[in-house]
Amino acid sequence: MITLLTDFGTADYFVGAMKGAILSVDEDARIVDITHEIPAYDIAAGAFTLLVSYANFPRKTIHVAVVDPGVGTRRRPILIASENYYFIGPDNGLLSYVCEREANCRVFHLNKESYFRHPVSPTFHGRDLFGPIAGTLSKGIQPDLLGSEITDFIRLAPLSARPSGSDKVDARIIHIDNFGNCITNLTRDDLTDEMIASGVTLRVAYHEIRSFRQFFGETNPTAEDVFCVWGSTGYLEIVAFRASAASTLDAERGQRVMLTRH
Amino acid sequence: MITLLTDFGTADYFVGAMKGAILSVDEDARIVDITHEIPAYDIAAGAFTLLVSYANFPRKTIHVAVVDPGVGTRRRPILIASENYYFIGPDNGLLSYVCEREANCRVFHLNKESYFRHPVSPTFHGRDLFGPIAGTLSKGIQPDLLGSEITDFIRLAPLSARPSGSDKVDARIIHIDNFGNCITNLTRDDLTDEMIASGVTLRVAYHEIRSFRQFFGETNPTAEDVFCVWGSTGYLEIVAFRASAASTLDAERGQRVMLTRH
Amino acid sequence: MITLLTDFGTADYFVGAMKGAILSVDEDARIVDITHEIPAYDIAAGAFTLLVSYANFPRKTIHVAVVDPGVGTRRRPILIASENYYFIGPDNGLLSYVCEREANCRVFHLNKESYFRHPVSPTFHGRDLFGPIAGTLSKGIQPDLLGSEITDFIRLAPLSARPSGSDKVDARIIHIDNFGNCITNLTRDDLTDEMIASGVTLRVAYHEIRSFRQFFGETNPTAEDVFCVWGSTGYLEIVAFRASAASTLDAERGQRVMLTRH
Repeated sequence: MITLLTDFGTADYFVGAMKGAILSVDEDARIVDITHEIPAYDIAAGAFTLLVSYANFPRKTIHVAVVDPGVGTRRRPILIASENYYFIGPDNGLLSYVCEREANCRVFHLNKESYFRHPVSPTFHGRDLFGPIAGTLSKGIQPDLLGSEITDFIRLAPLSARPSGSDKVDARIIHIDNFGNCITNLTRDDLTDEMIASGVTLRVAYHEIRSFRQFFGETNPTAEDVFCVWGSTGYLEIVAFRASAASTLDAERGQRVMLTRH
Repeated sequence: MITLLTDFGTADYFVGAMKGAILSVDEDARIVDITHEIPAYDIAAGAFTLLVSYANFPRKTIHVAVVDPGVGTRRRPILIASENYYFIGPDNGLLSYVCEREANCRVFHLNKESYFRHPVSPTFHGRDLFGPIAGTLSKGIQPDLLGSEITDFIRLAPLSARPSGSDKVDARIIHIDNFGNCITNLTRDDLTDEMIASGVTLRVAYHEIRSFRQFFGETNPTAEDVFCVWGSTGYLEIVAFRASAASTLDAERGQRVMLTRH
Repeated sequence: MITLLTDFGTADYFVGAMKGAILSVDEDARIVDITHEIPAYDIAAGAFTLLVSYANFPRKTIHVAVVDPGVGTRRRPILIASENYYFIGPDNGLLSYVCEREANCRVFHLNKESYFRHPVSPTFHGRDLFGPIAGTLSKGIQPDLLGSEITDFIRLAPLSARPSGSDKVDARIIHIDNFGNCITNLTRDDLTDEMIASGVTLRVAYHEIRSFRQFFGETNPTAEDVFCVWGSTGYLEIVAFRASAASTLDAERGQRVMLTRH
């Protein structure tokens, strides 16, 4: 099984061409789209979406991620083999969040050109390099035949929030989803049930949020209420009931969220 | 075979996570997307799109629909087994149009938690409940092992138009499609060939439409012409030739359409 | 294997209904989406996208393309069988670019109605005609059983650029992709390495482009730089580094590009 996550959009020939290239190598490959709508060139957004979806797939799934502004430059194509999954993509940080979470990662520089589709276009490695490598791996070729092991791959700055003094945590919105829910980088390590019970405030620009709930529809909410829930990805989310918290707060991805304990 | 119809959008991790959850239960499941672009929280829109697409699939297809503003509340997850198909989703009316059309529906409250993915997130039942149940059903587990039969599930108001006096029918636009075609809730029961031959008028806001055709390109239409055709779903559609009738009429979904016989 | 390329959009029931219709004929068909976001009614855009993606698929793939403003009129449904692929769609030019490139094309008018889904809606041949024919072909029925061979199918004007005097080529932008890259109809036949080395200028409205590079990130580009690369489809593209060349140039599809040799 092969999943795809890219910034190609779905209006173009890119996704079709990449799938065709995979299927030309392994006609039996099963291809599942995660998304092709990562904002163009946005490596961190791609890394996040991969992080919160990869582990739902069966063991040994091959995850191919392509958000690749440096395509054609000297940035390396890599394959990461963890205990449970394979990850294929450019060495630009896109695969680094999953690598932090997965055990026993081995990283390979994909430099065995005989497995590429030729001629390799300098602008479309999804079709000519990452796709064919995924098909090759899916047919059972071992990772160490596809490249040379490396350790100096590129890592993004960690997603985690930073304590700021003894009673504050400096956090941010790491994703705004289709419903306008604002996903922060706060986890249960930053914010225990005891802390929530004692009272905490989240500040986003001029807004203060003190309400924590278990789910969207708890206790007769209105669309104006903005409150926090523990989201399905393990991060704290700022949400509204049948409404977009992002619109209400006029919030953007990357925006600062300051957590204060009372 | 499992189809998916949701309001998740395709830019997020939701669809990928749900597919992964299905495939983690039944690795051989074949998943087909109907759409993930139902407007957020719009149960009636989801119910309509499911209604006009489900019957094109082979018998025994499992249709999973998730438009679920009440996720996490006491609204029940349900499974409907008809003679020909299975339907899985929240008990909020989303499955009620198909239930009106399908013969011999049995409805089950999905309360056998051992078939869920744990822990169950209170905000993402697509991944943790509906997806795994679909995978379980697809592996051949019988519906009555997945929940308790119920009869009091929630039904939306019927889609049908209402007669208004002896010569009028009070109808509405129930869907505007990608091409701007306006699908009404008028069927051949409301509007026979004889009535069309005698002459009828459709009023939409200030516009009057009297022209009925068999297909878009009949008799040298221009883009300004707005006319009626019997659409591919069995409903009367107000359309234009290579143009958006919705733009020409400035029409919206839900808008009233008054049919008058001459 | 069956690919789909349409202007149906992905928010409606069209794609699901068409896939269901295929799978109802051949439950084992493997369906791969190329795109459903061809601009509505835009035959040339669909023909281009099909041209630059079809050949990435394994031999004997069945490509179904539906951009069909004339659905329901006398325009014919056709099947093209080349040495390597099958193409199914309306006879309106949509399949003509691939036909120019593929060897030994035989073209069939799909007039064997017993293979259609009945009743055939006059407005949705994707579901009732093209889909079922694709499923039938995928099950192994031979093309000459599905229709009558013809030679007078409709061809679009060729994509190629035209020489204009001895030192100019009159070209145009034939596609703008998800990243804002402007794909021209200039190929290596119009523009040899020697010509590039001697110096050429591309004029797009008020802009002059003289810079040719091998890939996006070559030699420290900035987002303001607009330059040319040979794209992955074999056409010359006007691009920018991590930015939209189309926005910078305020360019549109169809826009004239004048190539001048120095």
